[in-house]
Amino acid sequence: MSPRLRHLSTLQNLPRETIERLLDRAEALRDACAHGTRKLEILKGRTVLNLFFEPSTRTRTSFELAARRLGADVVNFDLGFSSTSKGEELFDTLHTLEAMHLDAIIVRHKESGTPDELVRHAMSGVSVINAGDGNRAHPTQGLLDALTIRQHRPDFENLTVVICGDIQHSRVARSDIHALTALGVKEIRLCGPTTLMPAAEEFPAVQLFDDFDQAIAGADAAIMLRLQKERMASIDLPDEVAYFNRYGLDKRRLALAAKGCLVMHPGPINRGIEIASDVADGAQSRILEQVGNGVFIRMAVLNEVLAR
Amino acid sequence: MSPRLRHLSTLQNLPRETIERLLDRAEALRDACAHGTRKLEILKGRTVLNLFFEPSTRTRTSFELAARRLGADVVNFDLGFSSTSKGEELFDTLHTLEAMHLDAIIVRHKESGTPDELVRHAMSGVSVINAGDGNRAHPTQGLLDALTIRQHRPDFENLTVVICGDIQHSRVARSDIHALTALGVKEIRLCGPTTLMPAAEEFPAVQLFDDFDQAIAGADAAIMLRLQKERMASIDLPDEVAYFNRYGLDKRRLALAAKGCLVMHPGPINRGIEIASDVADGAQSRILEQVGNGVFIRMAVLNEVLAR
Amino acid sequence: MSPRLRHLSTLQNLPRETIERLLDRAEALRDACAHGTRKLEILKGRTVLNLFFEPSTRTRTSFELAARRLGADVVNFDLGFSSTSKGEELFDTLHTLEAMHLDAIIVRHKESGTPDELVRHAMSGVSVINAGDGNRAHPTQGLLDALTIRQHRPDFENLTVVICGDIQHSRVARSDIHALTALGVKEIRLCGPTTLMPAAEEFPAVQLFDDFDQAIAGADAAIMLRLQKERMASIDLPDEVAYFNRYGLDKRRLALAAKGCLVMHPGPINRGIEIASDVADGAQSRILEQVGNGVFIRMAVLNEVLAR
Repeated sequence: MSPRLRHLSTLQNLPRETIERLLDRAEALRDACAHGTRKLEILKGRTVLNLFFEPSTRTRTSFELAARRLGADVVNFDLGFSSTSKGEELFDTLHTLEAMHLDAIIVRHKESGTPDELVRHAMSGVSVINAGDGNRAHPTQGLLDALTIRQHRPDFENLTVVICGDIQHSRVARSDIHALTALGVKEIRLCGPTTLMPAAEEFPAVQLFDDFDQAIAGADAAIMLRLQKERMASIDLPDEVAYFNRYGLDKRRLALAAKGCLVMHPGPINRGIEIASDVADGAQSRILEQVGNGVFIRMAVLNEVLAR
Repeated sequence: MSPRLRHLSTLQNLPRETIERLLDRAEALRDACAHGTRKLEILKGRTVLNLFFEPSTRTRTSFELAARRLGADVVNFDLGFSSTSKGEELFDTLHTLEAMHLDAIIVRHKESGTPDELVRHAMSGVSVINAGDGNRAHPTQGLLDALTIRQHRPDFENLTVVICGDIQHSRVARSDIHALTALGVKEIRLCGPTTLMPAAEEFPAVQLFDDFDQAIAGADAAIMLRLQKERMASIDLPDEVAYFNRYGLDKRRLALAAKGCLVMHPGPINRGIEIASDVADGAQSRILEQVGNGVFIRMAVLNEVLAR
Repeated sequence: MSPRLRHLSTLQNLPRETIERLLDRAEALRDACAHGTRKLEILKGRTVLNLFFEPSTRTRTSFELAARRLGADVVNFDLGFSSTSKGEELFDTLHTLEAMHLDAIIVRHKESGTPDELVRHAMSGVSVINAGDGNRAHPTQGLLDALTIRQHRPDFENLTVVICGDIQHSRVARSDIHALTALGVKEIRLCGPTTLMPAAEEFPAVQLFDDFDQAIAGADAAIMLRLQKERMASIDLPDEVAYFNRYGLDKRRLALAAKGCLVMHPGPINRGIEIASDVADGAQSRILEQVGNGVFIRMAVLNEVLAR
């Protein structure tokens, strides 16, 4: 059996067995919550702290709900987002929190690698969980996307998944690629404006596309990424309408995909930019299932790292 | 028996029986809390979320305390008040929260009608509770005011109640009028500067006054409204002193009311503008009783909408 | 036995017996938490509210953890720090909170004396705990510093303690002096720039120094104070490097102190200004022990004031 995780910083290099254990746990916890007892006591008496250096109400709330449903206490350590907190200042904050005997720190930071630095500098038994660092990793998003796909298509070895948008700056894309690769997905395709694509050597096993019609042809799942509006300037396109025409998911394009292609997005969606409203709200959309799975995945991760 | 409420958006058109049930429940919960066990377990395992698009520490805290005293978990979904969140964006937020399996959403929004739009768009079993929308409704305030009056004067059919101030922009006034009308109050009088009065046809059964001396004469309860300072510009009065002289409640005016007239205000009070300090702090003031009743009313409403 | 405290505003004039009882309680609670059950139920059903008019994530979090570990609910009454809330406005806020039936209010305010004013105006059984007021008092910091010293050197009657930095504006220094004086410390020395020293008559029993080499000679504990950067203008020194050279704690100076001299700082530290990094992280540093003791001291104080 793969060893229990004490931290979760990235999915990169995690064995398939570990990822499957987390997905299985998420489903077991979902079932446990559904049967009347909405609140479990698995982590009763444990304290989890949200340390967010970037605002993200949705992700923070998802972690907060996950921790509370396991019976843990949650503290929001609200630094104000003016604080950059790097280097010694960040480690002093870490050590201060450790001295207060917290069990887990959930961290979001705009600098890639921050969670690993916290793990390296941690002096106590605290667990560090990455809630998104720079462009690098958003492991719970990768897991919840994998779980959402598995619930519909457990036959990963047959699947083609396309990820479309600003791949270069997307920690979601990276964690999705890590999870889906480990789970044995047949083919991963990345599509987006050339200036927003990763270097070819970063993901040698994936296929890169500029033409979304080609990329989505025959795909079993399409993961659309949120476009940060400030990126428009770096793309050779006049406006968001042009972006949607090139890289947006509408009905016509969805018809090019395999039958029943799963439509996914990490949210919040920009309607009419990444995705057409009728597709976002359509029968193939799994976007709200992703949100629901997010809470269960975060419960599974907290349960994994905080198990005694 | 009137059907159980699943949401609470407005008191308008609620049957008297429903309002009385909520007031009775509030008193029963107050008694249950008073006997040693300050925290009940009626809503254990349920999760309530505060979704405030306008800041209101007092009201948010009152709801938070109410939910916790019933054993529920409370999450503050802090959007920052820069977010306007309207239309599709608002409904996407709603659906995201529903997908996280929340039991109730307590919403405050500056646009009238927002809670009803949330009810209309809700896809799951979530309950929506209005904590104030635009000028339209603040139903828990209406209920707590009715409860405060009933504790002193249960003989509604004999009562004259005057509401004074900026009626036009007051969701408190509207919810008070709805509650007191349903409960059979004999006479409701509205008083305020002409430019801040509602259209005569909005409340055909009430009496409108410009002269506060006449309006308060013989009244059994006086509900003073908070004056938003930015409204002064629209009133034909030079300053706040002049406002107080025309529409403020001081000892002389209180003496014109019926003996024992209840002095009420939704808070926070502007001393010397709406109300003289000695009256706010005097023997007839029920302002702090209103605050105390607010927590019990909100417990009753949460209990009503979340009962299984 | 010294009477139970109902409030904690300052350590000034508290009897030694009371201070020792709080230190003993903190250690008993630490032991109780360590044995498996991290969460006690001593204050189950009680509600504690953080009323912070100055931001302080660390202190607020320490109080929040303390209250939760005793089983209490915690509400953060977040006024935004634009609010000054003085005089009548402050007392109306107090009375509103009392009407909501809170058990304790933890207050931080930039005006000295605010907690005492709240105690004077409180109408109900609410307990007021000072989390720092102006330059005057930070009693839980004084207690946690005393506890940290006692854990290493319980022989207070033999000890020399030096406090160095901006004494004049430091509520930490004042509460430390009150605690250590009550506990019978042999000698207290204060050191800092002349313009940041208190008037000689404020603490007649302590010794004042300008030369930190002299002040630290033979000391058993050195409490370094945080330098607020805006104070530099009032000191006759060109920059922070010059400040560190005159008043900073480095290895050379620590060697002048008694063997095993405890190195302390209320945090957050400014490395290279008040203290050298190798000293802050060195074997004699008790800075993180202070943080840990802070939670237990706050548990002890909450337990004291809220005991039935």
